[in-house]
Formats: sequence, structure tokens, C-alpha cells
Amino acid sequence: MPCKPNVNGIARERANAIADAADAVRAARPLVHCVTNYVTVNDCANALLAVGAAPVMADDEAEAADIAAIASALVVNIGTLNARTVRSMTLAGAAAASKGIPIVLDPVGAGASEYRTDAALALIGRIPFAVIRGNASEIRVLATGTGTTRGVDASVEDSSSIEAIKGDAEAFARKTGAVVAITGAVDVVTDGKATYAIRNGHPLMGSVTGTGCMLSAIIGAYASVASAGSWGLAGAVAAAIAGMGLAGERAERRAGRRGTGSFRVALIDELSRLDARSLRAGMKLDAR
Amino acid sequence: MPCKPNVNGIARERANAIADAADAVRAARPLVHCVTNYVTVNDCANALLAVGAAPVMADDEAEAADIAAIASALVVNIGTLNARTVRSMTLAGAAAASKGIPIVLDPVGAGASEYRTDAALALIGRIPFAVIRGNASEIRVLATGTGTTRGVDASVEDSSSIEAIKGDAEAFARKTGAVVAITGAVDVVTDGKATYAIRNGHPLMGSVTGTGCMLSAIIGAYASVASAGSWGLAGAVAAAIAGMGLAGERAERRAGRRGTGSFRVALIDELSRLDARSLRAGMKLDAR
Amino acid sequence: MPCKPNVNGIARERANAIADAADAVRAARPLVHCVTNYVTVNDCANALLAVGAAPVMADDEAEAADIAAIASALVVNIGTLNARTVRSMTLAGAAAASKGIPIVLDPVGAGASEYRTDAALALIGRIPFAVIRGNASEIRVLATGTGTTRGVDASVEDSSSIEAIKGDAEAFARKTGAVVAITGAVDVVTDGKATYAIRNGHPLMGSVTGTGCMLSAIIGAYASVASAGSWGLAGAVAAAIAGMGLAGERAERRAGRRGTGSFRVALIDELSRLDARSLRAGMKLDAR
Repeated sequence: MPCKPNVNGIARERANAIADAADAVRAARPLVHCVTNYVTVNDCANALLAVGAAPVMADDEAEAADIAAIASALVVNIGTLNARTVRSMTLAGAAAASKGIPIVLDPVGAGASEYRTDAALALIGRIPFAVIRGNASEIRVLATGTGTTRGVDASVEDSSSIEAIKGDAEAFARKTGAVVAITGAVDVVTDGKATYAIRNGHPLMGSVTGTGCMLSAIIGAYASVASAGSWGLAGAVAAAIAGMGLAGERAERRAGRRGTGSFRVALIDELSRLDARSLRAGMKLDAR
Repeated sequence: MPCKPNVNGIARERANAIADAADAVRAARPLVHCVTNYVTVNDCANALLAVGAAPVMADDEAEAADIAAIASALVVNIGTLNARTVRSMTLAGAAAASKGIPIVLDPVGAGASEYRTDAALALIGRIPFAVIRGNASEIRVLATGTGTTRGVDASVEDSSSIEAIKGDAEAFARKTGAVVAITGAVDVVTDGKATYAIRNGHPLMGSVTGTGCMLSAIIGAYASVASAGSWGLAGAVAAAIAGMGLAGERAERRAGRRGTGSFRVALIDELSRLDARSLRAGMKLDAR
Repeated sequence: MPCKPNVNGIARERANAIADAADAVRAARPLVHCVTNYVTVNDCANALLAVGAAPVMADDEAEAADIAAIASALVVNIGTLNARTVRSMTLAGAAAASKGIPIVLDPVGAGASEYRTDAALALIGRIPFAVIRGNASEIRVLATGTGTTRGVDASVEDSSSIEAIKGDAEAFARKTGAVVAITGAVDVVTDGKATYAIRNGHPLMGSVTGTGCMLSAIIGAYASVASAGSWGLAGAVAAAIAGMGLAGERAERRAGRRGTGSFRVALIDELSRLDARSLRAGMKLDAR
């Protein structure tokens, strides 16, 4: 029997398999340890609960390793880093690596200060991250040591083409050994070989703080079920990104006109209603 | 005149008296000092305002004692503890004890790390807590030194019977001198002699972060009016727990289908509309 | 041609000019650096995004100066201050002063502890604040060294007349060289010469944590466009305060009956829909 017709360049079967990751997270209810910033930590906890995972947010060096050791994934987010929490990230990273659970880095604002860029690079040097997710300017700073980032929530109107972003992501993935996700108007996910482009999402998501941080936390949950199906790690990350984007689209349709407060509430609502079936129907995934 | 017929084992008059605590909080507008975690601190502040109290969240050792000294209750929550904030908890606890205001402990995640368990036990050793509120696994770890806790927000599907939980709570209350509240599918409150079981609440509350932390903060407000009526401290704690559970039931009916974001907003709405009359009508309280 | 008739003592043209600041913020999309408390930091970020600005919340001494140097305004909020963040405030303040961007102080809870009062006064001694915004008791403590503050969110039922508040604000503005804003039932803004009174707002705003902190963050955004029109710094601050109050009025009409959770969501909604036209139509501004 011939392969079914491609949908945006991916066999329908493969896209369906990727969407199944959403149900696998709900079945596993993974405990996700986040060492994260205090701006969006509550949003990250509620986003994890919404997709069917359980959050634990411990950030002190006296217990970071112990907490990582009972978790199914670790998410490191440098949004409001300081010397104490960077030490905790390192300790948690070592414990997570030794246990073999996936570790996600969100290098929030890399490029906005030397301290932030250096800390992100030092973490990458010490911790075997499974996934690194950032916007185009953050990843470029880390990949090349050049460029600047205006701020942690600033939407970078990047003039780069999708091809240039794809090239940056693939090069950084090969350099770090991590799955690299660059999110923006179009999202790119790659493990250095297979590459996905995702076109879900809505610009209004940039008017709410924490959509990037929430996504990184959710990626932690999805990465923890990378081996529970045929989707693989890059596929699990693509599913998380498509799901977040789809929730944004639906929230905008339902509440966007009321304003950004209502949109933010609807975004969590839609995450809590997301499953393999709805993700399959709405994901805009492309293999490149 | 004979006693009115019992409602779930409690004289109707006694249940009504307990519900009156909700109005007493609104009349007193108590200032509640929380040394708490940064994940749910905003939710705790809004929950306190919703029930008619006023929050103050200072957590540094340079002022913890001064702030406790102007408050009507102190709530200590170890959700994201570290050496600095544990020192502040101790200083605030000493000031609160010397002033004679009630002190509430929420041992979030006790059992999830040695640091967290040890810190909770050390605080119990140093501070004369009026109330200790946790889930079954947290309290069991503190009472017996055994057992484990999966994570701070993890819903512990505890196989223990209500009788076993009641036994744990009463033993720990006698050991610590505190009113002990174990919350779960059924909530148990005891001062070691009188014991209440509360059957309000909805499972969806476990899909929103901070419902436990908010409840502990609210218990602080209610504990501060323990002497303003005939309900006593255990009765005030039971009123707070029944009120939170009732708000959860109503929020679920009004917004549960929309998703967890809307449910969370509705939960605060219902807390802000709670008074003695609605609590009297909806509380499911049982003396055991 | 004669001057148009006054509206509440201000020429209509001048009021219109002030309202235009709302559109100037949306056009400039200023990056506002907040060194702020962890209770309401998420609300501040979402409020800044809602009015068209971009937030960056870095608070560590290792990068505070670097982040301030890429921002358009700095907002210092002592809500949960500690030794580490006070050092960051000082370093960020020096960098912001050297770059010439406006710096806003929110002395949350000054008067509630000696540490808090001393820290606020020390910051005022070291940093050339462009704007200082607080409630009547906070500003009185800083201006005179006397008085007490009950708590950070406590609504101070101040017996002072509007004339007394105006006197306090003008004296403190002359002493510090800053535009001083005292917010309460009626808000007063003054640079020591021109003085505005603003009568927007709704008492329900006191039932949600962070409305004061959000306002101070928004004032940072508006202060950054003080020279973009004819409104001046005091006019820009008056526009920010009137806009926040107007959003509160509209949110109360739309959602107040549902409860404080829905009101809080609607408040962000209304901030996100605010522009010069709606502000012009709804502002209640008075020159005194």
C-alpha cells in the first residue's frame, strides 16, 4: 500500500503519531521540576497542570538535586537568574542527568546582559540539555556569540528568513547535541537531522507575559514521554509547540476581542482542553 | 427545649455558629502576614482580599519580626524555602508568638526532600503553631518521620481510610499542641479532642496551582477571629476549609466546563462572595 | 480666539493633550525595567504589555545596571525588598540616571517597618527619582518621618482633606525634585508647581492585589514619553493614573458583580483597550 498523501510535507500517519504525545502526557502525569523565574512561575505551574502534568518549583541549592531526582523532567529558565539559583540549576542538572531524565533550557533574555549570556553558555557547557528553546535572537547570541536581545518579552521582529532560522537551529543542534526549538512567527524544531516547521499560534500571545516560559515548561512534560510512542524527542517538542500555538489560536477566537486579560484566561482554558484528537485536527506541521 | 436535630452529627446551632466566622473575618479585616513561596503568593494575596482580610507578604529577616508585630495572624509556607526565608520564618514566628497572634504552618512538600522535611520539623520545634495544615502524606511524614511525598502539587491518592487520617491528625495534634488539618477528598480538622470532617470541595481544584496555599492563608485570617464567637479555633479552621471547598464547588458549576483558567478566576469570585449565610447553606460538616 | 471653556478647571485642549500620552506609549513601545516585588510582578508585566509597553524584570546586582542601560524607564518597587535587591535597585538607578531615563519609586509599605522606611529614604538619597508614587501614609512617612502604615495593601482611611494631601505632595516634590503622586480616593500629582487632581477609579480596585504596583509600572512607561508631546512629566503621570482609574471603572461596570477574580481579569482587558480617545472621553482631571 502506498504511503498516504502528505499533509504539508509530512505523512498523515506521522503527524497523527506526533499528536498522540498530548494524550501520553495526560496518561503519564509527569512531575516536572522547574528552576525558573518568579515573574511567570505561577503561569508555568498552571500551564503544566492544564496539559496534565504536575509541577514542582523548588529552586534552592539545598534541595535542587533531591527534587530533580524524583521528577520526570527538569526545566531550567534563566528569566530572573542570580548566583543562588544558577548554583541550583547546576545541581539539579547534574542530578537529572545522572537519573537520565530530559532537561530543557529556556535562555530567557540571553544577549540582554553579559551576565545572562555567560550564565546560559556556562549552563550549556555543564548540563547535557535535551532541548533548548528560545527566540531567534536568544539562540543566535548563544550559537554565534553575536547579536543583541532587547528584552525578555520583547517580540523580536527578525528579518531573517525561515531558511536562515532553520540553518541557525540545525547548526546549534549539531553543536550542542540538543533538540533546538526557535519560536517566533514560524517555529522551527530540529535535532540536527529531522526538522519541523510549525505555523500555529497568534500574535496576541506576545501581549501576555509568560507564553514562552509556559511553552518551555510544557516542553519538559512532553519530552518526558518522548519514548512512549513513535514520535521521538523532536516530535514530542513539535507537539508541545503546536499545542501551545493551537491553544493561542482558539483563545484568540474565543476571547481576543475582550482584551488581553480574558485572552490569558482562555489560553489556559484551551491548554486544559487539548488532547490528541484536537491537536491532530488543528496542528500546522511541516517537515523541511 | 430539646436540642434541635443534628445535621450530620453536629447540632444545627453549632454549625451555624461556625459559619458565622466568615462574617467575623469581613468585620475584622485582619492583616495577615505571609512568609510564603513565590509560586502562589499572588493567589494568596488575592484570596485573602477576597475573604475580607488584608495581606502583607514581607519575607526578609531585616523586617520579618516588625511586620509580624503589626499583623493579626502569621502564615508560614515552605513552598520555595531557602536559608534566608527560613530565618525570616523563625524571626516572624518569635514575634508573632510574643504578641500572641495565631501562627499557621503549611509544610508544602514535606517528604519530597530531606531539606524540606527537616526545615518543617525544625520550625515546629521552635514556633508554637496554632494550626498546621497539609495533605495526608505531608502530615504523615512530619508525624512519623516515614513516607514520601511526590511533589508539592501532586494529588496524593491516599489509600488510607478516613479513620486512619483522623487517627494521624489527632495524634499529631496531641503531639504538637496545634489544631491539625489534613485536607484531601475529605478534610479532617482536630484539636486532639473535637474533630470535624468536611466534605466540601471539587476534584478540579487539584488542576489549579495554589488552592492549598490559598487555603492556608485564609485559615490565618479565620484563626485571627477564633475568639470573636463561640466557634473556637478548630471551628474557625473548619469554617475556612468548608468555605474554600464551597467556593470550589460553585466555581466548578459556573465555569468548570470552560477550562481550568476560567475555573481559577471563578474560584476567587466565589471566595469574594462568601459570607456566613451562604456558608451556612452549603457547608458539609460532620463531627466525629 | 478665546480659550475654550474649562473642563474641571483645565482647558479642554490641555486635557486632550494629556490623554494623547496613551497613544504615544503604544507608538514608542518602551522597554520598562522593573526591580520589583515577587507578589505582583506578573501583574506588572501584564499591565505594561496591556498599555503597549514591554517589561523586563531583572533584579540581580550582576546585571541590574546592564538591563537598565537598554531600557526606556526604570521602576523601583520595595514591596518585598531584601539586601540583594536593594543593592540591585541602587546599581540600576545609577545606570538609569547616567543614561538619563526616568526612574519611578513605589515605596510600598514605607512606615510598616523601620527597614522599609530606611531603605526608601536611602534610595531617595542616592537616586534622582523622576516620579515617586505612594498612598497618603507612605508619602507622609517619607516626607515627615512620622506616621505609620498598616500594611502594603491596606486601604488607609485617611482623614486628611484633599488640601492637606495636596500640601504634603507639593512639599515633598519641592524637597525631592521629583513629581510626586499620592493615590487614594482622589489622586494628586504635582511637580511642586503645577498640580492635578484625578477622580477616576473605583473602590473595588482595593480588593485586588497589585493595582498600586501596576500603576507604578505603567507610570514608568508614560514617563518615558514625557517629552514626546506637550503634556510634560506631571501630565504624563496624570494620564497614567487617570487611565488606570478609568480601566477600573469600566472593569467594575463589566465584571464587578461576578466577583474580584473576574474584576481583575477585566481590569487588564480595559487597560489593553485604553487609548487617547477613550482616555479623553473618560478622564476626570482637575488642575488645582
